Amino acid sequence: MAVHGLPQSKGRLAIIAGAGALPHHVAEAARRQGEDPFIIALSREADADWTGFDHTVLAIGDFAAISRTFATEGIDRVVLSGAVRRRPEWRDIRPTFRTLAKVPSVLKTLMSGGDDAVLRMAMDLIEASGARVIGAHEVVPDLLADPGPLGAHSPTDDDRRDIAAGIAAANALGALDVGQGAVAVGGRVVALEGAEGTDAMLARVADLRADGRISARRRGVLVKLCKPQQDERADLPSIGPSTVAGAEAAGLAGIAVEAGRALVLERPRLVEAADESGLFILGIERDAWKAGR
Amino acid sequence: MAVHGLPQSKGRLAIIAGAGALPHHVAEAARRQGEDPFIIALSREADADWTGFDHTVLAIGDFAAISRTFATEGIDRVVLSGAVRRRPEWRDIRPTFRTLAKVPSVLKTLMSGGDDAVLRMAMDLIEASGARVIGAHEVVPDLLADPGPLGAHSPTDDDRRDIAAGIAAANALGALDVGQGAVAVGGRVVALEGAEGTDAMLARVADLRADGRISARRRGVLVKLCKPQQDERADLPSIGPSTVAGAEAAGLAGIAVEAGRALVLERPRLVEAADESGLFILGIERDAWKAGR
Repeated sequence: MAVHGLPQSKGRLAIIAGAGALPHHVAEAARRQGEDPFIIALSREADADWTGFDHTVLAIGDFAAISRTFATEGIDRVVLSGAVRRRPEWRDIRPTFRTLAKVPSVLKTLMSGGDDAVLRMAMDLIEASGARVIGAHEVVPDLLADPGPLGAHSPTDDDRRDIAAGIAAANALGALDVGQGAVAVGGRVVALEGAEGTDAMLARVADLRADGRISARRRGVLVKLCKPQQDERADLPSIGPSTVAGAEAAGLAGIAVEAGRALVLERPRLVEAADESGLFILGIERDAWKAGR
Repeated sequence: MAVHGLPQSKGRLAIIAGAGALPHHVAEAARRQGEDPFIIALSREADADWTGFDHTVLAIGDFAAISRTFATEGIDRVVLSGAVRRRPEWRDIRPTFRTLAKVPSVLKTLMSGGDDAVLRMAMDLIEASGARVIGAHEVVPDLLADPGPLGAHSPTDDDRRDIAAGIAAANALGALDVGQGAVAVGGRVVALEGAEGTDAMLARVADLRADGRISARRRGVLVKLCKPQQDERADLPSIGPSTVAGAEAAGLAGIAVEAGRALVLERPRLVEAADESGLFILGIERDAWKAGR
């Protein structure tokens, strides 16, 4: 019998948790959907407090222990969530017999791959252990951004021009497997997200603004897009209340994310914060936007 | 009669100086070429000490005063050098009668243009005043980077892979008129230059490194390229001793710039610093590199 609203399943859900607040939000949301998630917190990465959840701490390259945990806990579905800032080095990889055959390609990927390549490799190794990798939004569909304005405010024509400039930059970045975010002010891209992440990029824009290098008379927008080639089972781009606070501190007019391909965390708090500070939050449809919507 | 090594000219050279050390280096180098440059230091931008040079301080949008200065000083050639961090607002523009006809397009550019568009506009306005805008390298050709290694060190195969990744990112950025610089480590782009400039980007990479988010086992490179559509009379990308210091602090293996389309400032000091810290400085030919050289 299928559990209410979920694909039929006999096993337990695991969340492999990296850094940041996202994995905890995903775990709580999964619980609200009737799941009892088991948390595999990655050592040196996961920083949430997992009190109240069944959890264990494992090294990211320790596929042998991860695979054992899948067996003892009866895991059949796995969500990967959170940032993995420290890429595993080859000497940290402990393969299982099942995954041993894949080691040459693992080494190659670790030596040269972008974020997406490393993620795809991790997914392959997990699925070789018998569990299925699914996206957080498959467990908790209401995390996905809807099209249109999310709160009380909407972009002006100037903001829409900034959104278009941000989309062009985020697309170019994403195609290079670099980042997902860009900030445009006055039709001009002023910051691009690399390994530092969205919060650090917004802090940089706030500094540029304080330094007079971005006009106080123009506001600007943050655009976050899914990379064109991104496997949607990896974390989709996400925004939360802290993103709104960072955008406000940077003097921006609002935030645009891709409808259906971005996660909105703590939606009620986020919308309240955006409404209070006058920021718009917009779910955009990339193709409709391109066509000049 | 043509002055030694210079195109025939009866007038004086002006340098319109923005922020940073570059304009002063250009002025000194011009003097070594037999020029007696007159400096127009942009208020709120120029930060060099111009003692020892004929100079005046003017607002960037004050084309009326700039045009008068051209007439009184007998300026016939103008070099634009240094960063203009604060874009002029429309209310700061003081056009001349000659430039008045161009004002509508000026306003449009200021409202929406990227750096290149604003620069082209400034050049058009200057040339409408009767002077010719030339590149710094036309006055001081030995500022240009040569192809090949500049100091004692050369890139390894790993470094060359990082250079290729950096070229791809810098090209994508440049086509969007965003920035000219990128840092790649382990084949992966970790930082992209926006309005913050190269030094701030290198400081960010040093922070990511200190934070363990870039492996200590991989070095990486800084790549700076001319934007594909860049007017070469605007400042070409430049490196100097401070770039070497920043790259060393970021743990990089070296710096690649485009031969013939990048300025190398204080070359003897730069080469000495790079040699001492073990960094390579490489002039690359974009097309040869693409072909797999």
